[in-house]
Amino acid sequence: MITFEAAHRIVLENSVSFGEERVPLSEGLGRVLAEDIAADRDFPPYDRSTRDGIAIRFSAWEAGISSFTIQGVAAAGAPQITLQNDRFCVEIMTGAMVPTNADTVVMYEQLNIEDGHATVLQPVRLGQNIHKKGGDTEKGEVVLKKGKKIGPSAIGVLASVGKTEVLVKKLPKIAVVSTGNELVAVHETPEPHQIRTSNSYTVAAALEKEKIVATRLHFSDNREEIKAGIDKTFQNFDVVLLSGGVSKGKYDFLPEVFKELGVDQLFHRVKQRPGKPLWFGKHRASDTTIFGFPGNPGSTYANYHVYFLPWLFKSLGLKWGLPKIRLAEAFQNTTDLTRFIRASTYLEDNELCATLVKANGSGDLTSLVATSGFLIIAPEKEHSAGELLPFIPTEKTLP
Amino acid sequence: MITFEAAHRIVLENSVSFGEERVPLSEGLGRVLAEDIAADRDFPPYDRSTRDGIAIRFSAWEAGISSFTIQGVAAAGAPQITLQNDRFCVEIMTGAMVPTNADTVVMYEQLNIEDGHATVLQPVRLGQNIHKKGGDTEKGEVVLKKGKKIGPSAIGVLASVGKTEVLVKKLPKIAVVSTGNELVAVHETPEPHQIRTSNSYTVAAALEKEKIVATRLHFSDNREEIKAGIDKTFQNFDVVLLSGGVSKGKYDFLPEVFKELGVDQLFHRVKQRPGKPLWFGKHRASDTTIFGFPGNPGSTYANYHVYFLPWLFKSLGLKWGLPKIRLAEAFQNTTDLTRFIRASTYLEDNELCATLVKANGSGDLTSLVATSGFLIIAPEKEHSAGELLPFIPTEKTLP
Repeated sequence: MITFEAAHRIVLENSVSFGEERVPLSEGLGRVLAEDIAADRDFPPYDRSTRDGIAIRFSAWEAGISSFTIQGVAAAGAPQITLQNDRFCVEIMTGAMVPTNADTVVMYEQLNIEDGHATVLQPVRLGQNIHKKGGDTEKGEVVLKKGKKIGPSAIGVLASVGKTEVLVKKLPKIAVVSTGNELVAVHETPEPHQIRTSNSYTVAAALEKEKIVATRLHFSDNREEIKAGIDKTFQNFDVVLLSGGVSKGKYDFLPEVFKELGVDQLFHRVKQRPGKPLWFGKHRASDTTIFGFPGNPGSTYANYHVYFLPWLFKSLGLKWGLPKIRLAEAFQNTTDLTRFIRASTYLEDNELCATLVKANGSGDLTSLVATSGFLIIAPEKEHSAGELLPFIPTEKTLP
Repeated sequence: MITFEAAHRIVLENSVSFGEERVPLSEGLGRVLAEDIAADRDFPPYDRSTRDGIAIRFSAWEAGISSFTIQGVAAAGAPQITLQNDRFCVEIMTGAMVPTNADTVVMYEQLNIEDGHATVLQPVRLGQNIHKKGGDTEKGEVVLKKGKKIGPSAIGVLASVGKTEVLVKKLPKIAVVSTGNELVAVHETPEPHQIRTSNSYTVAAALEKEKIVATRLHFSDNREEIKAGIDKTFQNFDVVLLSGGVSKGKYDFLPEVFKELGVDQLFHRVKQRPGKPLWFGKHRASDTTIFGFPGNPGSTYANYHVYFLPWLFKSLGLKWGLPKIRLAEAFQNTTDLTRFIRASTYLEDNELCATLVKANGSGDLTSLVATSGFLIIAPEKEHSAGELLPFIPTEKTLP
């Protein structure tokens, strides 16, 4: 049995690249950029008025002119016009091109307009209310870097530079496999000795947050069925996430079946709770990564976040951090195992704090709903209220 | 022109309920529960072994028996069996029903098994390694409350209690409308006086995070086209989010068009930056809510998060909070406007801190990508480094 730290290191050392693919812009949200995005032109592409008002030549104002004859209108979306005379002005709209020969914009609020003349009522600065060509970004400059997770504002930037398609990191194809004869489908009414399947739904939903559409499968506790089923998943999936079947029970066939199928076991059993029987390995022939989570809902959920998510992030080239959070109450880990403790977070003043969620062992699914993450507590460690502890968020931690 | 506080209050006072709908469990993630979910049976539904080992009757151990004859195996998913004799034990698997007459489970690690007999090597406690029937939740108990946003763990609970479909709050139908003759489509090469549309992509992507599939539309700066277009959106959408066309320009027809279409203007123009020309109103006849965001990318993006999102959350019955965050550098608001300042967050020790993002006015789209939220700064307020300020997150604030 290895330590949590060793197991975590082995998992991260075995990250995988799934390649790249081009997707339509409309499918880009939440994906990881696999190309640098450069500006295809200056931004803004022209000297752009940031106000509605008039465009003038500053030197005219400086020379004492304060009333200008309105020559015409510069609308947003219209080609550039030319200011024909220093005593003239052009009415200009927000977003419009500043006319040739003009260099300053005065907004309506500071004007008096009458009989085709605009009188400037307040002092003027050279170049005011103009967003200069290339002021944000010059043509060719990288505006989005490879490796960035695409958020809504990046979608806007991609649209601006004309990317109808974008090169992103490919996501792994994932099978989420439940095992166990006690499981029946959600629509069924379980017999007294049965329960409905839930882990594969939880894991598939968690993957949905990562933009991964997983395939849910179920194998009964039948050695041949499991073996044939697992063998087939290797051909079709990059990752297999299993729940159940890795413990010491008589029907926990998975570790043996993996061996028979030529899977490299990288570790089995970790000094931790929940999830001591955690199994991790690789099927080299098909380049498939296998996480065997223990089947208790709390074990699967904790180990998904503790091991699989950082592995996925690293595989996609994303950073994964372990923030620290203030413990609101004392906790004593009397075991020689690393503990993942269910916690609920709140913000006090400016501090992220965590209270412990009362859980009734790792089979307690309902208490997971009140959990916003797991505190990691080292073996035989005693912590007082107020100490900072590493924390793995499972839900949004800010309102 | 009204204050930010007054405008915000008016927006929140005008939240709307969109009703409820039943969706398949597989579409439940991120939706808001519109029904209380009760346990359809006890959880666990039977006295359930949490270990692989043997099930015994504690009184036998207490009476001095430490070696038990193995009577058979209790597998997970098999009907309950009966321990026939105090001197017998049943091999039992994790998740299996504890046999009738047995009340205690000893795990394999604490046994010696030979010739059909199991010898217990360590002290035993009554009831150990058994997850009692109803220990987590009793039948009929509410396990998920109405109003909760459904996360992955709640999906697991819904599966457990047999909800193939779930009643959730309906999401509004939203049209995201860009206006302005300067805009061309993403796939087009803009003329020097044109730019590609981006705001409607940004807003639609932000809505995607809220599980809303918006319809993107574009209207040119043509009064009749805008009027006909807006009128039609009222028939088909609950919400219209517009960008551009609400300023003081000659082609900013929207406020007038709204009036002609019988829309109640609830406010126009707010003492804030960015987004002074913000327009908000309701078309009572069709019960459509209209947000007219100023067209600069920074204005649209900030006002979407400052006004629209809290309105949406309140409309769906979700809590919306305004966390405070520590300012890492001094900032002086010399204007009489409430400012929304682009900030980037980081965690120092346990504290959420914000540095300011250098932005080149509200037209600067590329700096939004570095922004993880907006600090709200009151008019004519000077803040030193280290002060706590209200903060509206736009991206995930923890790693």
